[in-house]
Amino acid sequence: MANVIPDKFVDLFKKKALASLATLMPDGRPQVTPVWCEYDGRQVLINTAIGRQKDKNLVHDGRVALSITDPDNPYRYIEVRGRVAERTEVGADAHIDHLAQKYLGTKYPYRQAGEKRVLFRIEPESVTTMG
Amino acid sequence: MANVIPDKFVDLFKKKALASLATLMPDGRPQVTPVWCEYDGRQVLINTAIGRQKDKNLVHDGRVALSITDPDNPYRYIEVRGRVAERTEVGADAHIDHLAQKYLGTKYPYRQAGEKRVLFRIEPESVTTMG
Repeated sequence: MANVIPDKFVDLFKKKALASLATLMPDGRPQVTPVWCEYDGRQVLINTAIGRQKDKNLVHDGRVALSITDPDNPYRYIEVRGRVAERTEVGADAHIDHLAQKYLGTKYPYRQAGEKRVLFRIEPESVTTMG
Repeated sequence: MANVIPDKFVDLFKKKALASLATLMPDGRPQVTPVWCEYDGRQVLINTAIGRQKDKNLVHDGRVALSITDPDNPYRYIEVRGRVAERTEVGADAHIDHLAQKYLGTKYPYRQAGEKRVLFRIEPESVTTMG
């Protein structure tokens, strides 16, 4: 599959900028929340806790959009539309530490008792950019 | 109608933070883009150009979600879900100048030939906050 994310916008995934992830509520309304994310050169990876609204929404309908605004230039952004290619608990706990390292420079400090992490791999399908 | 936006989060609408506006594509997929916005104490106002994807989506389905992250604290945010209460060209041209004043401290400098502005009033229905 062709890589749809332009090279000149890959830097946005390396900065500490949060992505705004839009998912669909079970009745089809949009939901949007800030999330940590990374790009592995092919897919966009996010991580949440099992049972949260995002998780429920993505299980129900895997279609998503996410935008990242350049923290150094608010009029430069990328929007990626795509869908969930994989939802897995395998490696999800290590992955939230990996994301925390990117965003906080430390292991994930917010674990809650009984919380189970889940990792989503999102296949980009189309991209819009500005700036 | 009860005001659903908590007083302690109204400050997010006064800062220069862009909102991430999620709309629905005609086939029901989510779309998300950064937008200027303001809150008049009752509704959230945004402004776009007629014919843009956002405008087309909102005409097709008025259900939206928007989130604003505190530029001074990336782990504080508000998400507002609601729907379009009004779409109007009346006052829309003056309103984009008003928003530009908030975000840029000047009149709107990006007008394009033939562009017609349209103002959307969004009625908040539910709110999620963090921080």
